[in-house]
Amino acid sequence: MTGRVVLVGAGPGDPGLLTLRGAEALRGADAVIYDRLVSSSLLDLAPPQAERIFVGKVPGVPHPSQEEIDRLLVDRARRGATVVRLKGGDPFVFGRGGEEVLACARAGVPVEVVPGVTSVVAAPAAAGIPVTHRGVARSFAAVTASTADGRKPDWGGLAESADTIVVLMAAGKLEEVCRSLVCAGRPGSEPAAIVQEATTPRQREVVGTLESLPALARAAAIGSPATLVVGQVVRLRSSIAPEGHQREGGPRRSADRPRPGRAKLLR
Amino acid sequence: MTGRVVLVGAGPGDPGLLTLRGAEALRGADAVIYDRLVSSSLLDLAPPQAERIFVGKVPGVPHPSQEEIDRLLVDRARRGATVVRLKGGDPFVFGRGGEEVLACARAGVPVEVVPGVTSVVAAPAAAGIPVTHRGVARSFAAVTASTADGRKPDWGGLAESADTIVVLMAAGKLEEVCRSLVCAGRPGSEPAAIVQEATTPRQREVVGTLESLPALARAAAIGSPATLVVGQVVRLRSSIAPEGHQREGGPRRSADRPRPGRAKLLR
Repeated sequence: MTGRVVLVGAGPGDPGLLTLRGAEALRGADAVIYDRLVSSSLLDLAPPQAERIFVGKVPGVPHPSQEEIDRLLVDRARRGATVVRLKGGDPFVFGRGGEEVLACARAGVPVEVVPGVTSVVAAPAAAGIPVTHRGVARSFAAVTASTADGRKPDWGGLAESADTIVVLMAAGKLEEVCRSLVCAGRPGSEPAAIVQEATTPRQREVVGTLESLPALARAAAIGSPATLVVGQVVRLRSSIAPEGHQREGGPRRSADRPRPGRAKLLR
Repeated sequence: MTGRVVLVGAGPGDPGLLTLRGAEALRGADAVIYDRLVSSSLLDLAPPQAERIFVGKVPGVPHPSQEEIDRLLVDRARRGATVVRLKGGDPFVFGRGGEEVLACARAGVPVEVVPGVTSVVAAPAAAGIPVTHRGVARSFAAVTASTADGRKPDWGGLAESADTIVVLMAAGKLEEVCRSLVCAGRPGSEPAAIVQEATTPRQREVVGTLESLPALARAAAIGSPATLVVGQVVRLRSSIAPEGHQREGGPRRSADRPRPGRAKLLR
């Protein structure tokens, strides 16, 4: 009898941001096929005897192609397994979840999708930045700095559109992205922040402007995975996350500064 | 001793899409202040003796102003309560969560934010539509049809920007929104879908184009809350949710058609 595949969004990093339904799916899994960004404690939710297969990308190390991952999902389900495909964030937000669903559907394998908390919203939130705010931002747009096909996003259109722009996987291309947005018409003085490993104990963030942020992030050695957020909402951070020593630039670990009046993620 | 406020995103409707951390916060709540869209079963997670205060908007019925809600949060926390502010979707996505955080911060009340699964992504997903898909959509933008201040979104900018456009609270303004997007340059033949009460047992969806959708949705009596999704990703639905009888228009209840090969939300 054919099993099934459940695509589960693991959320942005904090294992507490998995959904109840995602946890339930993991507890019933015969196999878990997981990405790099997934917290290892989530894997512990699966039964001890469940097969655990890492298919994440590690720079400089060979990793399975998308086609190989698709085949793995179909193969394990055809052997009768309940397969949980655990993906960072939400499966349908730059996660190639649609491709995996299509591969299963084509093979006649039942497939279900459990949405997750997307980093598009949660990474800015973890730094005290709401992606929308009345009177400040009434829309947001999301894009990834690195697309699977190597093409660049339409920065011109994006710059003109949404009040808040969120760019995932921005660490390696921060200078190029900020420059593109300025060339496309966003002011160089526009507030911008980059948040590394949002919602984890290792979270660090740097705040500046489209002009200043690349150098500040370089000085702070901000690395992957990181989310860039651009727009006037970034200013709200100083009110939402009040700090005596807040200053432009300097990286700070979120965990170092729990204090009253600060919006932080529950851990 | 002052208590604290925890803003919790309840997700799009299905109570299983609450996060683990959100459930934990509810279980420790002395007071729950909740909106209309929140599933009543979530309230059962709070202790029996917890105060439960409904502050949602019901058309034609007087409801507390945002300022009154802010005061309520601060007041209960000052009396020492752990207050859970339970909001539909994610607190920072068109949810006025930022305002509530600022009100608490100004009053010196500790406040934390637990992100949720946003309808921006989950409502299309529940209808088998990924907001991004390699080779089809590399960006998405989100906006609400009704803004708190009554101003209209910048449809021109949005139309030019993102590959996929998601409009929350679209039911009452569907004709105006679709017309605005066409006037702003999106083709009338562009695929569009509206999903009512996504991820609940009452979910219904209608699929058409920017030109045809308003009449189809009217004929199907699509009402609030509903999410509009516009873009070529809507076409993927027929592959991701294959159905013998799928046709343009006709409303269908998701719950009526579980079948192999269909991407559906786990319930």
